[in-house]
Amino acid sequence: MSRTIGVGVIGFGTVGAGTIEILMKNGDLIQRHTGFRIELKRVADLDTETDRGVTLPPGILITDAKALIADPEVDIVVELMGGYEPAATFIREALNNGKYVVTANKALLATQGWELFETADKNGVSIGFEASVGGGIPVLRSIREGLCTNNLNSIHGILNGTANYILSRMTLEELAFEEVLKEAQQKGYAEADPSFDVKGIDAAHKIAILSSMAFGVKIPFDKISTMGITEIEQLDVKHARELGLVIKLLAISQWQAGELEIRVEPVMIPETHLLAKVNGVYNAVHVMGDFVGSTLYYGKGAGRRPTGSAVVGDIIAIARQLTKGEAYDIPPLGFPLSSFQPAVLKDSEEVKGIFYLRMMTADQPGVLSRISGILGENGISLSSVIQKGEKQEPVAIVMVTHETTQRQIHNALRIIDDLEIIRRPTLALHIEMDLK
Amino acid sequence: MSRTIGVGVIGFGTVGAGTIEILMKNGDLIQRHTGFRIELKRVADLDTETDRGVTLPPGILITDAKALIADPEVDIVVELMGGYEPAATFIREALNNGKYVVTANKALLATQGWELFETADKNGVSIGFEASVGGGIPVLRSIREGLCTNNLNSIHGILNGTANYILSRMTLEELAFEEVLKEAQQKGYAEADPSFDVKGIDAAHKIAILSSMAFGVKIPFDKISTMGITEIEQLDVKHARELGLVIKLLAISQWQAGELEIRVEPVMIPETHLLAKVNGVYNAVHVMGDFVGSTLYYGKGAGRRPTGSAVVGDIIAIARQLTKGEAYDIPPLGFPLSSFQPAVLKDSEEVKGIFYLRMMTADQPGVLSRISGILGENGISLSSVIQKGEKQEPVAIVMVTHETTQRQIHNALRIIDDLEIIRRPTLALHIEMDLK
Repeated sequence: MSRTIGVGVIGFGTVGAGTIEILMKNGDLIQRHTGFRIELKRVADLDTETDRGVTLPPGILITDAKALIADPEVDIVVELMGGYEPAATFIREALNNGKYVVTANKALLATQGWELFETADKNGVSIGFEASVGGGIPVLRSIREGLCTNNLNSIHGILNGTANYILSRMTLEELAFEEVLKEAQQKGYAEADPSFDVKGIDAAHKIAILSSMAFGVKIPFDKISTMGITEIEQLDVKHARELGLVIKLLAISQWQAGELEIRVEPVMIPETHLLAKVNGVYNAVHVMGDFVGSTLYYGKGAGRRPTGSAVVGDIIAIARQLTKGEAYDIPPLGFPLSSFQPAVLKDSEEVKGIFYLRMMTADQPGVLSRISGILGENGISLSSVIQKGEKQEPVAIVMVTHETTQRQIHNALRIIDDLEIIRRPTLALHIEMDLK
Repeated sequence: MSRTIGVGVIGFGTVGAGTIEILMKNGDLIQRHTGFRIELKRVADLDTETDRGVTLPPGILITDAKALIADPEVDIVVELMGGYEPAATFIREALNNGKYVVTANKALLATQGWELFETADKNGVSIGFEASVGGGIPVLRSIREGLCTNNLNSIHGILNGTANYILSRMTLEELAFEEVLKEAQQKGYAEADPSFDVKGIDAAHKIAILSSMAFGVKIPFDKISTMGITEIEQLDVKHARELGLVIKLLAISQWQAGELEIRVEPVMIPETHLLAKVNGVYNAVHVMGDFVGSTLYYGKGAGRRPTGSAVVGDIIAIARQLTKGEAYDIPPLGFPLSSFQPAVLKDSEEVKGIFYLRMMTADQPGVLSRISGILGENGISLSSVIQKGEKQEPVAIVMVTHETTQRQIHNALRIIDDLEIIRRPTLALHIEMDLK
């Protein structure tokens, strides 16, 4: 048991530095747990100058990732550069070299993961990717191993810390979207180009990975219905509060009668639900199983230290097998790849629910009757309407519907938003009252 | 991989029936995950008549647990009878027979676990006990494997569903303790003798197990400072609400400078904290690590189906190793037994904090000055005092202290509660304002 396991890290950025810091600071702890030492053999990054607050042993930092992969002292290749290329090429090369891979690259796994998992299988190795979803929260491990006795029914996740930070600040501090976004960028919580976060794409990557593991099906990433938070205004947050609701960007995946409903969108949920209390940069994943019932996993969804914690957790799990000279026996996606079928996705237009509609209209007589007339013609009935006396145009009209389909909403809004009395596109949000 | 793994279940009660139901209903799912079948070979219970809502194959149900243990077709012995004896004898016998054991028996593990883990080690087998803490929540697995890269700092758990159900109902429905307890007993949420649950003993069993795994130390169970919820009155719940707090029975374990502070007691926590939102029979465990930061695990803490889910999860983890003909390599307590030292427990009298004091006094002039005088003589200063005009004796006086030690509180209350103006023993609860 005195063998050491060699690790090579490609990408010395935020998560790379966190991973290396843990390996250096908690090496004794890891040795006490496992009986062996994990040794950092190589770090590859094009930038060998910037100070990341971690001092590497001399000679370890190189620019050539391919040399790292080929190094016989490197048993586990840790890909933390992100993006599609050259990350995919490096991972493929490592796997084809018979090396285990650990990665936090959700964008890559959600879109090209299948090919990489097959490459790993073919080479008798595996890919660890706990860090790709929910930062430091051991949620993939919980689903794959802890809940593997359950047919899972649904996943509801707050999976993007930036979007959740913005919505939380809008809710708790009554600030406008643009204001909070700017502040988040200044604090480093949001990227200069925040599209992936605020448009729901990052959350879609993560729900694709979670769903594949939870339900054992292949997820066509480009079919995931995705809506961001850029259209949410302070008045929507306020209206939600008046209804006893909170707006959260949720990634939702529900299995029903062989069909998978999968979508990312801002939804209104009851303020008493545990997910409504998940604020700031925290993530949480709510998972329902047929025997276990409701479970929830909560923690920091990003950041150098939490994400590094998940990366090193995967390194240790793989190293435990390597020191015994054995293959890692739990399939990375929970089920053997050979048993996967493509998911049959539910037509997102057919998803039923209660909707919040917020229209910005002209201040004229008859507006309400025209709008409600069109809704009625499309089979949409209303449970409540709020129109407050406003001093100026546009006037906000807020409606809550009875149960209807997304298609009916879209059909009606296509007509309504074309009316000359409508000043801005109407916002339609699902209200998830019976969130388990 | 076509090998089957034979399971024998001792104890056909609530959890036994849930475990068996999962093995029967989700056998195909488990086979898809693992490639092998888990077969129920024997069930042992003295009662072979009662209908548990699960139909066993004929000939499987026997009364002789020792025959089950000796049966060569039984690879894994699942002990679900609970209690100390004969459960301990059966587990010991199974381990000495070279069989793996899965158990939900927290009382046994908290008090005699060390000897059983050593017996397992000596025989090259292991004990699975995920079901002993937090019902269906895979929290032990998360700590042992997901967070093993972290030096853990603290655990705060709502670990007893019955106590949490009672406190939740007292908070949400403004009912009295006795009233809710009676109702819980009628609904089957509380035992006819609810002592273990309402006195905090069951939660102490669970925090002992969690702490041993989280901090890698032996926990002397009888040294855990334990206080129940029987003294909590509706007026305390109401006062907490006025302070923006909620009363929860928390099991707390904090590692500081080589000392462990470990206690179970009702404490007041901010109503905005996630743990304050954990209601009814749900459990939650908040775990802090040096890199991962705050994490939380939530789900049903008891019941046939959730607990069965955890039991079968352990069976699968062990079966994966058995089908490969290997020893289970992750130590059940996370660290190798040889590396454990007895925990150095912090003197609970030295624990510092802010306290809520509720005194029931005579309605006389000068009461407040006498009480606050004694508090002052014991070095306790107050941040607030609430005394409402009451129509009748006893009058409730509520005080919130500045930071002080448990010892100072005890010293002062020993004098105060002896005063002839004090009508009932004073209630003192920690207020945990800076709960992470």
